[in-house]
Order: sequence, then structure tokens, then C-alpha cells
Amino acid sequence: MAERYEATGLTAFATRLFEKAGLDSEKAALTAELLVEADLMGHTTHGLQLAPGYLKKLAAGEMTAEGEPEIVADMAAVATWDGRYLPGLWLTSRAVDEAVRRAKSFGVGAVTIRRSHHIGCLAAFLTRATDQGCMLMLASSDPSVASVAPFGGRQPLFTPNPVACGIPTGGDPILIDISASVTTNGLSGRLAGEGRRLPFQWWLDADGNPTDDSAVIERDPPGSILPMGGLDHGHKGYGLALMIETLTQALSGFGRADAPTTWGASVFVQAFDPAAFGGLEAFERQAGWLADACRSNPPRPGMEKVRVPGDAALARKRRALAEGVELYPGIIGALAAEAGRLGVTPPQAIGG
Amino acid sequence: MAERYEATGLTAFATRLFEKAGLDSEKAALTAELLVEADLMGHTTHGLQLAPGYLKKLAAGEMTAEGEPEIVADMAAVATWDGRYLPGLWLTSRAVDEAVRRAKSFGVGAVTIRRSHHIGCLAAFLTRATDQGCMLMLASSDPSVASVAPFGGRQPLFTPNPVACGIPTGGDPILIDISASVTTNGLSGRLAGEGRRLPFQWWLDADGNPTDDSAVIERDPPGSILPMGGLDHGHKGYGLALMIETLTQALSGFGRADAPTTWGASVFVQAFDPAAFGGLEAFERQAGWLADACRSNPPRPGMEKVRVPGDAALARKRRALAEGVELYPGIIGALAAEAGRLGVTPPQAIGG
Repeated sequence: MAERYEATGLTAFATRLFEKAGLDSEKAALTAELLVEADLMGHTTHGLQLAPGYLKKLAAGEMTAEGEPEIVADMAAVATWDGRYLPGLWLTSRAVDEAVRRAKSFGVGAVTIRRSHHIGCLAAFLTRATDQGCMLMLASSDPSVASVAPFGGRQPLFTPNPVACGIPTGGDPILIDISASVTTNGLSGRLAGEGRRLPFQWWLDADGNPTDDSAVIERDPPGSILPMGGLDHGHKGYGLALMIETLTQALSGFGRADAPTTWGASVFVQAFDPAAFGGLEAFERQAGWLADACRSNPPRPGMEKVRVPGDAALARKRRALAEGVELYPGIIGALAAEAGRLGVTPPQAIGG
Repeated sequence: MAERYEATGLTAFATRLFEKAGLDSEKAALTAELLVEADLMGHTTHGLQLAPGYLKKLAAGEMTAEGEPEIVADMAAVATWDGRYLPGLWLTSRAVDEAVRRAKSFGVGAVTIRRSHHIGCLAAFLTRATDQGCMLMLASSDPSVASVAPFGGRQPLFTPNPVACGIPTGGDPILIDISASVTTNGLSGRLAGEGRRLPFQWWLDADGNPTDDSAVIERDPPGSILPMGGLDHGHKGYGLALMIETLTQALSGFGRADAPTTWGASVFVQAFDPAAFGGLEAFERQAGWLADACRSNPPRPGMEKVRVPGDAALARKRRALAEGVELYPGIIGALAAEAGRLGVTPPQAIGG
């Protein structure tokens, strides 16, 4: 059985690591908290697994440690920030708060960020808005990275392009976090590293032939991840990818046309205040009915039940808070190496 | 070779049909114009093929012929209308204009419509906003219809749930129109009517087994259309379906929880003014670069080239305006029957 850790201990440990690496206490604490939140929800490729990479980028000066984003534009319901490669989880949590604040005044609020550093797990931000009775949409792309080809093509052009949505229901919120590609860079890389294949042909080799071997995306010339919908209806995932590239890079005014080389993110954050539309009560009535109708939908052969997005993550989070967080193999070892370098004591496993 | 018709003649003919059926001249003209626009773009399941159904609903009093939408809420950047089952193409074109107007004042503008009648082809509305330098997002669902099951389930719950996006580039706009399901009701019905099957297992029978026979959606008990992503990554299309159901029904405050039985639509319209974000020039530079990068992406085996969404539709439109509109078999016959009933003379085929 894998070792388990108390969430508060992990957050304090990661906060200390980021402080030692040069972040002020607010940036360090929010970054640590949101990475641990992803692990709590079971999104293990986007939790503390990312911390060593962030620490290395701070050490190399490729993640900006200090200061505020620069305001590019600010008008009524919307704002555009230049994130100066500041920590992306901190920037995005600020953008969510700002979008919610503007939604309360204008019905809808949107913030786009150019040149953010990596923003981690999109699902981890959603309850920040749903707890305030707002619906949140959040999307990101990284214009310095290409791993997904447009439908019909074979040369990587897009990132997987996640889009997340938090929906208040009165009870547990619906927490959607999908990408416009059949799978992510994180899962592709993990499978390739472990020499594993999936029973699906989710990748194309550099010649454009379908394959179940994710290692093609790391070859030279590289293969690509298929857009959502795969070979037979991937024009739909391709359309969604173009929407997300545009919301994040064209609205923020910085993207692939600038050929950036720094690991980062272009971010789109939007909040809706249901009170300004048909009312929060009516909103939650519809959304709650829909969630219940999904849960009671009869499962098809081989499926235990129909899940609502967020249900499994919130159940994992409750269990992890009660029983400890089970980290994916290798994560605590990688963190311990950083801790040694920075002089921080790693947490003890529960009962360890 | 199929018969061709002049677009202006088709629009005048359809306008006259809708006027005879009780619509005032503005509602009739906009409805006709937007149906023909869909045919011009080649979206033949959502062009004049829909007109006989609309005329029947007008005759039965199930499409409201007169009056204005009721304002449910109106605040700064957003508004919610009760469409009273007025013609959906007219309502939606008004909502697009209103969203663009609000975007020019607040950076973003959103209009939701409950109880609209059917809104036709979403792609047909997009240039209304992109011609004014705005990015448009448009989504709809019909809470009286269910044909798509949630991922893992086998009972229809959602509509296919289209989402469209118009993106200015400086040149031809990118015009995206996709649904959250692997295919649409329109295509499923057309294939079933023609006894045709596709080489894809895009449907589930009522027991939840995959099938290439779209006729299962018309059986009792009914089968379902799979969410985008199909059996192996349909959780993504399911997430998108929930987002669209929520944007259209929960924000507008009317939906499946009310168990409506009238053919209609819940609609979400949103415009972004790039000038309020990073600037229109920067927006078009990024979006134009992206479109060009797609077009020059090397095609995979069996593909002639990579297309940008909208390219084919705009090329078809240009050809149809020059050479005449080629209607899908059966459409002109169905319209002629309505024309006989209403005392309107059908247009002559070009050279016919």
C-alpha cells in the first residue's frame, strides 16, 4: 500500500519549499495549496508532481518570483493581464477572484492572462467561484508547446488545451475539467516513461499513422496527440481546440504568432453570476435536476453507474482529508531531493 | 445533376411562405434569410429543410407568430429573455446584435433565451458578430427533446447540444459549429430515413450496446447518440454537454426540470469585443496566424489538406451565390406542398 500524508502537512511542506525558492508567503501558500488540492481530487499528474519542475524554473529564473502582473487592459466587465511568468496558480486564483467580483457587478466577468507561468490543474480553481454562487469557465493553452495536430494534419500545433467549468447546484457543484484532445501531455508522458500502452489509438506517429504508443510524441520528428473525437469525429475536438487557443491567446493578445519559448500559459477565466440572469435559485434547480438525472441514468453494460463530473474527485478529497493523501509513486522522492537542496524537512508518512 | 436555385429567389419565396403563415415581415425575412444562409454554407439538414416543420408549427399555434420576447432580467453586460416560442432564428439574431452591443460597452455581453422556438443552424449567425470585429459564442439545447445519453449511461437525456464560435482573423473568419455528441439528430434521422449506416458505432441501442444503426434512436424504448469522444473518451463530450445544458437552461432559468413538451430551444449567446482585451489588431494577428498554421499543416495519409472550420462553408457560399443553391433532394418538393397550401408560387430552378 502506498504511503499516505496529511494534507495540511503536505501544504506546509510545499509552501516552505516555494518560500525557500524565493516566492513571498502569499504566492508560496496559494501555489502549494492548489497543487495539494489537485492531489486531494486525484488529479495526480497535476498535483505535487509539478512542484519539482516549478522549483527548478524558479532556480533558473524562468518563473518570476516577485511582483504583480502588469495591467494590459481594464474595462468594465473584463481585464487583460501580462503575467510576467509569475506563478500561474497564484495568478489564476487572483483572476478567478477578479472575474467573480466583476460578474457580481456586470453579470459576467472575464480576465485573460498572457505570459502566466504554468497554471496546474484547472479543476482545483472551480470551487473558489461556485462557493460564491457563480458559474466559472476556465481555459488555458501554452503557446510555447505543441503536441496536438489539427484534424487531418500530422504536425503538432496545439497544446491539449484544457477547459474547466464549475457549476453550482445547491449541493455538491458539478466540476468539469476536460481537454480538447483525446488525452493530455501529462498522461502521455507518464505512459511513455513507464513503457505502457493503452487499448486505444490516441496518437499519430510523425507520418500521421494512428498508434497506441504515446512515446511517439517524444520522438524527433514528433508524432502528435489526436484531437478529441479521434480519427472519426476529431473535427469536433479540433474546433474546440481553436476556440480555446483563441480565448486564451487571441483575446490576451499574445500567443503562437510570437513564437514564445518559455514554459507558460495563456489563460482565460470567466465567471457568470446567475443572480443577474434567471436567478440563483432557478439556476441551481436546473443544474441540480440535471446532475440527479445523470446519477440515476441506467448504466450501460460494464459500467457500474453514471457519474457526475466532480463526484469522484470530491469523494476522493473527503477521503484524503480524513485518511491522508496517497501520492503517486515517485512524487515524494522527487520532492525530497528538492527539500535536501533547499534545506526543508519533508513530512512524515502517516504511521510512517 | 440536382436542380439549382437563385439564393435571392429562395429567400423571397421562404419569406412569402412565412408571411402567409402569419409572421410579420421582419420575422419572416430574417427566418428565411438565415435558413437560406445555412443552405448556402452547405448545412443542408438545417436550411430550408426545416421550413415545412416551422410552417406546420405556426399553423398549429406551437410557434408564436407575433410580439416581442419578455425581458426576464437585464443588468449591465447581460440579459435574459423569455422567447414565448417566437421564431428562434429571429430571436437569436436579435440576441446576437444585443450581445455585440453590450460587448462594445462592457467588453463582453451575454444574452440567454428561454422558450425560444428552434434556432436552426448556429453557424449562420456568426458573421453577424465577426463582421463587427467581435468574437461570438453561441450554444443551444432543447429541453423538450432527449437523444444523447450521459457517458456510461444508456437512457437519452441531452440534445446533441451545438456550440458555435465565430472568430475574426482580418481575412475570412473562423466559423466553428460542433455538437457535444458524435453526431446530430438531423443526420441520424436522415440516415435512418434512407436506411443507411455509417462505418462508425456512433449510437447505443436501448440496452446500451454500440451500433452503427441510427434507427435505434427512433425505436421504443429508444437508443441514444454517444457523447463526443464515443466509447473510449466520451466523458469529455459528456462534460461539454453538461456545460452547454447549463449555459442554456440553468442561466436562463428554464429547462428539463420543468419538463417542457413544446419543440423549442434554450439559447446562450455571448460576444467578446477584442478591443477591450488585448486589442483587435493583436487578436486578428494571433487568430490569423493560427488559421494559416492549420492550413499549412502537412496532411496525414488519405487527407487532401487540413481545413480551417468555415473555409469549406464560405467557399460553398461563394459558389452558391454565383451558380445557384443546390438543395438536398426532397426539400423543394416538401416546400412546394406548403406553397400550394398557402398560395405562394415556388421559384423556378435555374435553367429549369
